[in-house]
Amino acid sequence: MVEPAAQPPLNDPYAGDPVFELHRGGKMEVVSTVALNGPDELSMAYTPGVARVCEAIAADPTVADDYTWVSNTVAVVTDGTAVLGLGDIGPRAAMPVMEGKAVLFKQFGGVDAVPICLDTTDPDEIVETVARLAPSFGGINLEDISAPRCFEIEQRLKDRLDIPVFHDDQHGTAVVVLAALENALKLTGRSMSDTRVVISGAGAAGVACARILLAAGITDLAVVDRRGVLNSARGDLTPVKLSLAQDTADTTGREGRLVDALVDADVFIGVSGGSVPEEAVARMAPDSVIFGLANPNPEVHPDIAQRHARVVATGRSDYPNQINNVLAFPGIFRGAFDVRASSITEGMKLAAADALAALVGAELSEAYVVPSPFDPRVGPAVAAAVAEAARKDRVARR
Amino acid sequence: MVEPAAQPPLNDPYAGDPVFELHRGGKMEVVSTVALNGPDELSMAYTPGVARVCEAIAADPTVADDYTWVSNTVAVVTDGTAVLGLGDIGPRAAMPVMEGKAVLFKQFGGVDAVPICLDTTDPDEIVETVARLAPSFGGINLEDISAPRCFEIEQRLKDRLDIPVFHDDQHGTAVVVLAALENALKLTGRSMSDTRVVISGAGAAGVACARILLAAGITDLAVVDRRGVLNSARGDLTPVKLSLAQDTADTTGREGRLVDALVDADVFIGVSGGSVPEEAVARMAPDSVIFGLANPNPEVHPDIAQRHARVVATGRSDYPNQINNVLAFPGIFRGAFDVRASSITEGMKLAAADALAALVGAELSEAYVVPSPFDPRVGPAVAAAVAEAARKDRVARR
Repeated sequence: MVEPAAQPPLNDPYAGDPVFELHRGGKMEVVSTVALNGPDELSMAYTPGVARVCEAIAADPTVADDYTWVSNTVAVVTDGTAVLGLGDIGPRAAMPVMEGKAVLFKQFGGVDAVPICLDTTDPDEIVETVARLAPSFGGINLEDISAPRCFEIEQRLKDRLDIPVFHDDQHGTAVVVLAALENALKLTGRSMSDTRVVISGAGAAGVACARILLAAGITDLAVVDRRGVLNSARGDLTPVKLSLAQDTADTTGREGRLVDALVDADVFIGVSGGSVPEEAVARMAPDSVIFGLANPNPEVHPDIAQRHARVVATGRSDYPNQINNVLAFPGIFRGAFDVRASSITEGMKLAAADALAALVGAELSEAYVVPSPFDPRVGPAVAAAVAEAARKDRVARR
Repeated sequence: MVEPAAQPPLNDPYAGDPVFELHRGGKMEVVSTVALNGPDELSMAYTPGVARVCEAIAADPTVADDYTWVSNTVAVVTDGTAVLGLGDIGPRAAMPVMEGKAVLFKQFGGVDAVPICLDTTDPDEIVETVARLAPSFGGINLEDISAPRCFEIEQRLKDRLDIPVFHDDQHGTAVVVLAALENALKLTGRSMSDTRVVISGAGAAGVACARILLAAGITDLAVVDRRGVLNSARGDLTPVKLSLAQDTADTTGREGRLVDALVDADVFIGVSGGSVPEEAVARMAPDSVIFGLANPNPEVHPDIAQRHARVVATGRSDYPNQINNVLAFPGIFRGAFDVRASSITEGMKLAAADALAALVGAELSEAYVVPSPFDPRVGPAVAAAVAEAARKDRVARR
C-alpha cells in the first residue's frame, strides 16, 4: 500500500504533546474488507463484476441493505455550533470530536461512522444537505447542533427520511439519565409517580431529559432555564419551551427560580453548565438524588453533593456513576441497524434505558447506578432491547 | 467489539453468487487508529482531552491538517446519473461502484475515501451540497456524473473550494490515455505535432482527453459525437462542445462523420461506447494506434484492431495495454495530499501522465505502452510527479 508521505511538523507548537500526538493524522481510517491482489479480484470488486450488484439494486433498492456498507453506516453530522462546552467553534474545529464519536460507534456498537461537518448553520440548508446525503447512510446521528435549531432540524429530518435520525445530545443523554434515575429511585424507595424532579437547563439535553422522564412516568417535574422555572405565565418562552412548560410546571403550579424549585425536590438533574449554591442543595428532600452533568465542572461539585444527597452522578470518569452517552448511542444504532429500523421511536429509547438499568442488577448501590462504559455487556444488551422494541413498535424492516 | 447481528438472507436470489458474496455487507469499513481500552485513553481521544485539539483548530484552521483525518480523506461524490455503462441508475445503485472506488483509493494511494451518493441531480444543489460538506474532506473526487452537467459542476466547485476537486471520469481517463499515447507515438516514431487524432465521444472522457491532448501538443485533432465531427458550422453544439470545436476541427477544417474523420488518421481514441466498422479502421494511416476504451465492448474489438493497427489498447484487463483510471487517481490524490495542494492543475495532470509513461521505460513494446494497475511503482511515481508539479504550479501549501 502507498503510505502518505511523512510530514515533518514545521514550528508545530503541539508536536510532542501526548493528546495531540494521539490525534496526529486523525483517529480513524477507511479500510477495505475485500482482497484486491490481482485482476480477478479487481474484476469482481470493481468493473465489470460490480455492475451486476448495481443493476440488482436499481431493480430492488432493498438489495443495497445486504450488498453495500450503507445499512451499517451512520453519518455523524454537525454544524459545529455547540461542541462540548466550547460552543460555536465551527465545522473544522468540531472534527476531532466527530472522529472520536465515530471511533466510539465502532468500538462499542460495531457501527461504521463517518464524520460530516457542515459549512452552514442554516436549518433549511442543514436539512436539505442531510436529506441529499441520505442514500449514502443507514442512519443519521446529529451532534453538537445548538438549541433550539436542533429540535426543528431533527424533527424535519425524521419526517422526511425513512432511516433512523437521532440527535445524541438530546436522546443519548436522556436515555442514560433515565437509566440512572430508575436505579436511584429503586435504591431510595421511590416510584416515578411520587418523585419531584428539577431539571436545570432547557437546551438539547434538558428538553430531551424532561420528555423521556415524562414518558417514563414522572409527573412532578420542573424545568428551569436561566430565567427560572418554565411555565406558561412567563411569556418569554420559545415554542419548544412553552410546550414543555405546559407538560411540566403548568401542571403543578411551580414557579420561581432554581433555588425555589429545589426546596423539597427529590431529584436534581443539571444539564446547564451553571452552578448551584450549596444552601439550595441542602434544602432538597432527604435521600435526594443529584446528577450534575456539566463537564468538566458539574453544576454541583460531587464532593458537595455527597454531603447532602444519597445518590450522586456526574459526567466525569473520575467519580462514580458516570452518565456517559457512550452507554447509549452505539447500542441504540446497533439495535436499530440489526432490524433495519426505519426510525428510532420513544419505545426504543425507553427500552434502551431499561436495559442499561437492568445491567446493574443486584450490585446496585449508591456508587453504582449505571454500568461502566467499558462493561462489555452494555452494547449487546442495549442493542437487543432496542431491536425488540423496534419490532414491537413496527418500525423493524426485518 | 460488538458485531452486527447475523442477517440470514430470506429468499435472497443473490445468495451464493460469488460476486454478490464478495459484496455482502459492503466492501469497506471505518476503523479506529487509536486504542480505546480504558478511561485514560477515552479521556484523551474524546472528552475532555479532545477539547484542546478543537480549540487549537478554532484558533488556527491549518492545525486540522495534522490533527484530524481530513487532509488524507477524499469524498467520492456521485449523483448516480452515469454509472459505468449502466447510465442513470440513481444514487443507491451507484454505491457498489463508489465503494469500489474508495477501496482502490486506499489500496493504490493510501487515501481514505468516503462514498457520498447524492439524492439530487440538480447542478445547483450538487454544488451547494458538496460545498457544505467540504470542511469534512481534504479533496473531492466527482464520479459518474453525466455530461454536460459534470463540466459545470466541477468548474463551479473548483472556483469555490480551496481543496482538490477532480472529476475522475474526465481527468483520470485523460491522464492514462495521454500516458499510453506518449508511449505509442514513441514506438511508432511520431511526434505530438505531426499526429492526426480522432476521438469518438464528446462526453466527460472525450472532452477531457481532447483537452489534455491539446495541452500536450497535439494540433490535428477531431472530436466526433453521434452527429459527426464537432465544428462550429454545425450549430447544434452545447457551449462545451462549441468551445472544443473551436480548438480542434475548426483549426483544421475537418467535418463529416466518424468514418470520414478516420481516413488517414494516425490515432483513434474511442470513449463513446459506439462501434466502428472495420472498413473505417482499415482506412487509417499505416502503423496506426487504436484505443477502444468502452467497457465491456470496445468501439473496435481488439482482435479486429490488431489486424490494422500497430498499437491497440482497451479498458479491459483480459487484453494488453489496459487503460485503467486506477493508474492515475490514487497517485494524483496521494501527491496532492502530500503537499496539501489547493487544487489539481493542468500541470499536475500532465506530470502524472509523463510519470506513468516513463515507468514503461526500456520495456516499451506494442503490448506494453502503459504499466499494469498492479505495478507497485505506479502510485508512488505518480504521487511524486504530481507533488513536484504542484510545487511548480504554486498550489502546494507545504
